[in-house]
Amino acid sequence: MTELFTVVPPSEAFRTFLRALAPLKETETIQVRFAAGRVAAGDLPAPAALPGFSRSTMDGYAVRSADTIGASESAPAYLRLVGEVRMGTVPDRRLQPGEALRIHTGAMLPPGADGVVMIEETTLSGEEVEVLASIAPGENVFGAEEDAAPGETVVTAGKRLRPADLGALCALGIGTIGVVRRPRIAVLSTGDEIVPPETVPQPGQIRDVNAQTISTIVEEAGGSAQAHGIVRDDESLLEAAVRRALEQADGLVLSAGSSVSSRDLTARVVDRLGSPGILVHGVALWPGKPTILAVCGGKPVVGLPGNPMSALVVAWRFVRPLVRFLGGERVSDDGFDDVLAEAELTHNVPSKAGREDYFPAVLRRVDGVLQATPIYAKSSSIVSLARANGMILVPLDYGGLGAGSRVKVVPL
Amino acid sequence: MTELFTVVPPSEAFRTFLRALAPLKETETIQVRFAAGRVAAGDLPAPAALPGFSRSTMDGYAVRSADTIGASESAPAYLRLVGEVRMGTVPDRRLQPGEALRIHTGAMLPPGADGVVMIEETTLSGEEVEVLASIAPGENVFGAEEDAAPGETVVTAGKRLRPADLGALCALGIGTIGVVRRPRIAVLSTGDEIVPPETVPQPGQIRDVNAQTISTIVEEAGGSAQAHGIVRDDESLLEAAVRRALEQADGLVLSAGSSVSSRDLTARVVDRLGSPGILVHGVALWPGKPTILAVCGGKPVVGLPGNPMSALVVAWRFVRPLVRFLGGERVSDDGFDDVLAEAELTHNVPSKAGREDYFPAVLRRVDGVLQATPIYAKSSSIVSLARANGMILVPLDYGGLGAGSRVKVVPL
Repeated sequence: MTELFTVVPPSEAFRTFLRALAPLKETETIQVRFAAGRVAAGDLPAPAALPGFSRSTMDGYAVRSADTIGASESAPAYLRLVGEVRMGTVPDRRLQPGEALRIHTGAMLPPGADGVVMIEETTLSGEEVEVLASIAPGENVFGAEEDAAPGETVVTAGKRLRPADLGALCALGIGTIGVVRRPRIAVLSTGDEIVPPETVPQPGQIRDVNAQTISTIVEEAGGSAQAHGIVRDDESLLEAAVRRALEQADGLVLSAGSSVSSRDLTARVVDRLGSPGILVHGVALWPGKPTILAVCGGKPVVGLPGNPMSALVVAWRFVRPLVRFLGGERVSDDGFDDVLAEAELTHNVPSKAGREDYFPAVLRRVDGVLQATPIYAKSSSIVSLARANGMILVPLDYGGLGAGSRVKVVPL
Repeated sequence: MTELFTVVPPSEAFRTFLRALAPLKETETIQVRFAAGRVAAGDLPAPAALPGFSRSTMDGYAVRSADTIGASESAPAYLRLVGEVRMGTVPDRRLQPGEALRIHTGAMLPPGADGVVMIEETTLSGEEVEVLASIAPGENVFGAEEDAAPGETVVTAGKRLRPADLGALCALGIGTIGVVRRPRIAVLSTGDEIVPPETVPQPGQIRDVNAQTISTIVEEAGGSAQAHGIVRDDESLLEAAVRRALEQADGLVLSAGSSVSSRDLTARVVDRLGSPGILVHGVALWPGKPTILAVCGGKPVVGLPGNPMSALVVAWRFVRPLVRFLGGERVSDDGFDDVLAEAELTHNVPSKAGREDYFPAVLRRVDGVLQATPIYAKSSSIVSLARANGMILVPLDYGGLGAGSRVKVVPL
């Protein structure tokens, strides 16, 4: 029962970890329609201007703005209606001074015209368009290069692709895109008391929870989780399993048994896997203090505490940004890219100055106010934890928070 | 160019829509390891207690709490060390008064013991354990039913399954789970100016963007998007395509061409598809005012404006919660379940009282402060929009927001 270590604040711990790592280099080319959630491997320039021609942004009349100078309700400008621009076609005539062409939103501006008068600012009698307002050059027009100029970067390297990105690629006629390969993360559980979920535990044993929760977090972060089962607390068995896992994957996450001796065993084995070895052993974090961050032969190894709640919180705080980083995504150096919201605390939350707490909570809107109710569960809980839909974040320098106070929360 | 309609606030529009709809009834049974992001079809009770036996939550000594009454550093209690509880096994003896058993975190509490003294609060000399603090009954023990009692609901119907839920199912040995079938949503684009993304547009034409963005949003919300291509602005062609799509799917999302006449056409066709027909035509929303919400023969039909930005915002505001609702998830009746964060606005945002604005923005942490920079793009933009990683929400009763003000934002 040794486990003597110096705790490091979470942000500093993650920074130290990232400095010893590099994103994957391998890329693959996939179809844009399958690219949601993947990470762009390189900058992507627009092959042509978008929309490529000037378009009306209103229903109305294409005009020469000069013909409308000074026009108002009391002193309209009078233009001659000479036809209509059909959607999706090139206008068949050049607009001459004193002329107007009916135009719809999205239709091509005819040559000679430099603006569009909204239909609401006109009255039509026969072939005569009364223009009741003056328009500026370019008014109600979407310019040929307004959405993108040729060569302009549309998607930047390291961006996780979202609906609008895929839409932009469609708009430019880009059908395939280079993305970073998904990082393969080996997931291994240890502990003499741990049995597979599909077995019936004997008294004293419990089913493995961490392999499932960690794998799900890995996949949600864009990685591919590889199941490496459960290893007993035996040094040579563990070392063999860990070496095998690390050979086959880009990184390894192992959850130690819940006892200190199981964690000590993990630390001893990890420290033998290759240089630089263990970089961080102990994080100023609750739950999850006895976390190990190591880099062995260029590959990351994360040793999580075995308690389900600790494992889940640390996987969320460290494994998630690790997978995103390996997968080529731009990640903050402290590993924390979540946007914090503010909520009103309904009950006290205990903490200690000098550590960050991630307190599972139920977030709920009551009369328009976001309320956070902490879930008082021991770190060996998992069912209680499943009720949480958010985390209350207690910063490093806070010593607990009282009911009624405003707190930072992360929705899950 | 008619399009005369009464606009309705977004929340009221969605409420009206939901009242005319019901979630899918069909369920399927799948393995827990594939269930991340799926929606539980029914309440799931714990088949047994969890953890099922009392466990230590600390490394230390299992004791009878009565033996420690009044113990302190100056007046320790003395107990006799009679062995150790091995991890994952049933203790081989009953603890007698005056005895202590060494125990590790997660190990089974021996019969006769009712608490654990942390190792830090003891000193060991030979076979004698000096206990330096008094403990209460149950202290440092995780009770047999503390995480879940038999029959207690572990997952409630309508919950989208997250990592902790899957972990809880593993802990209870539940290997399969009933989930609601994914809603099939037909996606159709209309407009004479629209061509497929893989073609080279003629001048005046633009590539279809909305099918991709809407499909991605449908899939992210847990639905299955069915591609129904592009239909020209022809009433009988459109009606045939829409009827076919609606037969094959649980719902239909169509994006009209960008012109008012194309949208009018959509409205006429949708209104003939079955009762009750169009429920909402026009929402007090920017961008996306000319939105149609209809229910035809029990199936939802959403008519989106054709401009890419409008289509994307309305799909995000209405289609996303619609898919979640059809897929059995519990959804707020106003369709808005996003947690809002607060940010500092870097530039002015225009708006009008009486409408909600969803302004695409770049969210950025600067010296720990979240800043929101609005993207001033016309609603025909898509490339500009792809830069956004959040939305600024301007409430119904606000008439624009000035630089420096605190605004509500939704991270994307």
